Amino acid sequence: MSSVRRIYERDSVEFGRALAFSDGLFAIAMTLLIVAITVPNIQDGDSVSDLASALNDRSADFVSFFISFAVIGRYWMAHHQSVSLLKAMDQRYLSLNLVYLAFIAFLPFPTALLGEYFENPLSIAIYATNVAAVSGMEVALFRHAYRSDLLERQPPPDVYRFGVLMAISPVIFFIVSIPFAFISTSLAVGIWFLGIPLGALSNRWKPDGADEVLLG
Amino acid sequence: MSSVRRIYERDSVEFGRALAFSDGLFAIAMTLLIVAITVPNIQDGDSVSDLASALNDRSADFVSFFISFAVIGRYWMAHHQSVSLLKAMDQRYLSLNLVYLAFIAFLPFPTALLGEYFENPLSIAIYATNVAAVSGMEVALFRHAYRSDLLERQPPPDVYRFGVLMAISPVIFFIVSIPFAFISTSLAVGIWFLGIPLGALSNRWKPDGADEVLLG
Amino acid sequence: MSSVRRIYERDSVEFGRALAFSDGLFAIAMTLLIVAITVPNIQDGDSVSDLASALNDRSADFVSFFISFAVIGRYWMAHHQSVSLLKAMDQRYLSLNLVYLAFIAFLPFPTALLGEYFENPLSIAIYATNVAAVSGMEVALFRHAYRSDLLERQPPPDVYRFGVLMAISPVIFFIVSIPFAFISTSLAVGIWFLGIPLGALSNRWKPDGADEVLLG
Amino acid sequence: MSSVRRIYERDSVEFGRALAFSDGLFAIAMTLLIVAITVPNIQDGDSVSDLASALNDRSADFVSFFISFAVIGRYWMAHHQSVSLLKAMDQRYLSLNLVYLAFIAFLPFPTALLGEYFENPLSIAIYATNVAAVSGMEVALFRHAYRSDLLERQPPPDVYRFGVLMAISPVIFFIVSIPFAFISTSLAVGIWFLGIPLGALSNRWKPDGADEVLLG
Repeated sequence: MSSVRRIYERDSVEFGRALAFSDGLFAIAMTLLIVAITVPNIQDGDSVSDLASALNDRSADFVSFFISFAVIGRYWMAHHQSVSLLKAMDQRYLSLNLVYLAFIAFLPFPTALLGEYFENPLSIAIYATNVAAVSGMEVALFRHAYRSDLLERQPPPDVYRFGVLMAISPVIFFIVSIPFAFISTSLAVGIWFLGIPLGALSNRWKPDGADEVLLG
Repeated sequence: MSSVRRIYERDSVEFGRALAFSDGLFAIAMTLLIVAITVPNIQDGDSVSDLASALNDRSADFVSFFISFAVIGRYWMAHHQSVSLLKAMDQRYLSLNLVYLAFIAFLPFPTALLGEYFENPLSIAIYATNVAAVSGMEVALFRHAYRSDLLERQPPPDVYRFGVLMAISPVIFFIVSIPFAFISTSLAVGIWFLGIPLGALSNRWKPDGADEVLLG
Repeated sequence: MSSVRRIYERDSVEFGRALAFSDGLFAIAMTLLIVAITVPNIQDGDSVSDLASALNDRSADFVSFFISFAVIGRYWMAHHQSVSLLKAMDQRYLSLNLVYLAFIAFLPFPTALLGEYFENPLSIAIYATNVAAVSGMEVALFRHAYRSDLLERQPPPDVYRFGVLMAISPVIFFIVSIPFAFISTSLAVGIWFLGIPLGALSNRWKPDGADEVLLG
Repeated sequence: MSSVRRIYERDSVEFGRALAFSDGLFAIAMTLLIVAITVPNIQDGDSVSDLASALNDRSADFVSFFISFAVIGRYWMAHHQSVSLLKAMDQRYLSLNLVYLAFIAFLPFPTALLGEYFENPLSIAIYATNVAAVSGMEVALFRHAYRSDLLERQPPPDVYRFGVLMAISPVIFFIVSIPFAFISTSLAVGIWFLGIPLGALSNRWKPDGADEVLLG
């Protein structure tokens, strides 16, 4: 729409706003699931066993809350880390960040669905799609920052390619798992966790100086 | 109430607070609709088709969430952009900003209404009114900033008039669409989208230097 | 508990945190009421009159939302203004601010109660008590800032007394109105609005230099 | 995962983000309980006694809201104080902070449970566990800051040990109280409050210079 490209430097009010907004959204998405958990109604208020069984009935809600908190918390850590590499943002970065945040804000729903219907392939598929979308947007944000010269220290091409590969690998694992979910939900979840040893393995092929540029 | 006018400079704590508050409100308004979407209750928890049809029943909720996120996200981008032109705020700007935010906070309701009753002219009319109010307040904020010398670079009169015209045009399109909604809701929505080619067209009449002042 | 008094200067991270926290809480309290408003269920989704009457049934909710937004928004403006006079905060100020915020966070409930049962003296009494508590805490915050030398420009005693009087007068009006609510709710609300001409009148007795110190 | 340790200095954007995120989460957790309190439905809207008795039925909700606000508010004060001693954060500090915040976000649920079933030993046990977890994480955060040289002024070993002991004592009191709750819930709550005179007493054994380092 405009031929002038706006750049918001790291210490500007505008750079800070984008983060305050993102952090507010993260905080809300992480606390949201607790609203859904209401205090149970039991006949004999003093009975330990009645209260225990009433709470047990909503154990899926408690598990969902803590898993959702851990998952979104891990994304917050990644977002925090990734933004720390930037020297500036531009409007396209802000737009991509909004799309990223839309998928973060949606995450509590598939998480709750998974908590309730863990054996259902559809829950697995929806959760895997949402998580793949978040990880995919992480890649898109990093790629845009690299191409538009927004990074504090521009990585050499091999380090950049390695960074993108590392970031894109969870997307692939999650998407690949979807058809397997319709055979067995446990198999699909197994594929998710396969990413961990592979990530450790990939460190062998890490180019020299990758840590310095990507982490610090 | 007072003869002394308080000015809050760009780097003051007070300027930052107004934005932290606005960004918090934007973040809440954008995540709010997800609360309303509860996990469905189905008999056979492992059945893909049962879960699919139960989720399909609330597809309007999902659509509302993402549309609402996109609409408010677009307003956040505009607010971010518009505040980036300011060198300071005064109390009147803060008050106008509060009125603007009230309409932003209300937006999820008409969006959900539209998602549920898209064929109903009243939904269209309420949504159009809310959106026109938000856009109208954008104009009021910009106009006040221009008249009270709050802009970093004061635009020449022809650029200012062009900026106001650009900002006011969606208000007009939305208000004009309301009576047409009672003939056909699709016609009304068509009028909303008419604004896009017209916006592109209007770039022809853009005064020299408008981009530099308004965007950068 | 400690003999060492911590002081957080205006530009410290800690001063900023107290405001980010306060602003987050304000933003949540102001958007909270919209959650309660759900999209109505009507038989004939295309009927304008059915939707209009369904929305009319929850008109009290809409009114509550906007009144609550306006009331809390006005308190945000006052908090913003009052903090702009500070050069520092101490831990006691933070504690008093938390008590103040507790009453702000509670406000949506009495507002909704008033919207639903305007004719009921008890609604009026609860609302008036809550508002008096908020205004009372404003006075406590200002008084503590004055006595503990936290203000940027220490006002002379007559200006300070005038400021306290101005701040305490709404408390008195709201408390006095409570017994009258049990005679007539409109009479009680009338007493609330009596504060406005009296505030204007009191400007006559304003000491010289009050504006400069209290507002600027 | 990486051999490079990232350090975020006090005045960096990244240090600020961690606090903005924490403060947002605190603010949401503190205002959350008010959402659960809905305006009662009464037949005769003008009857003071009907409204009074309807509100009385949800008095547990009001008590829960204010207790929860006070408890989480007290933790916010402690977090604010504890972070003010830091000169920097690292990624491990951020992770520990997330675990800490998960227990803060969960707190409204046990508080509401306690408000509803105060006589039930299980409510007491769940609340005591949650509170012990929060206090335990406070210790873990302080311990990590001490060991990883993140404190502005590194305390001498005796002051550090005293600080840990002071912070760990509520954890012990809360855990010890749990078995007693199954004998008498009032006895368990009594043990909680035993911590206060003991805290005052412990000031006698405070090493010289503890206040200067730990508070200021």
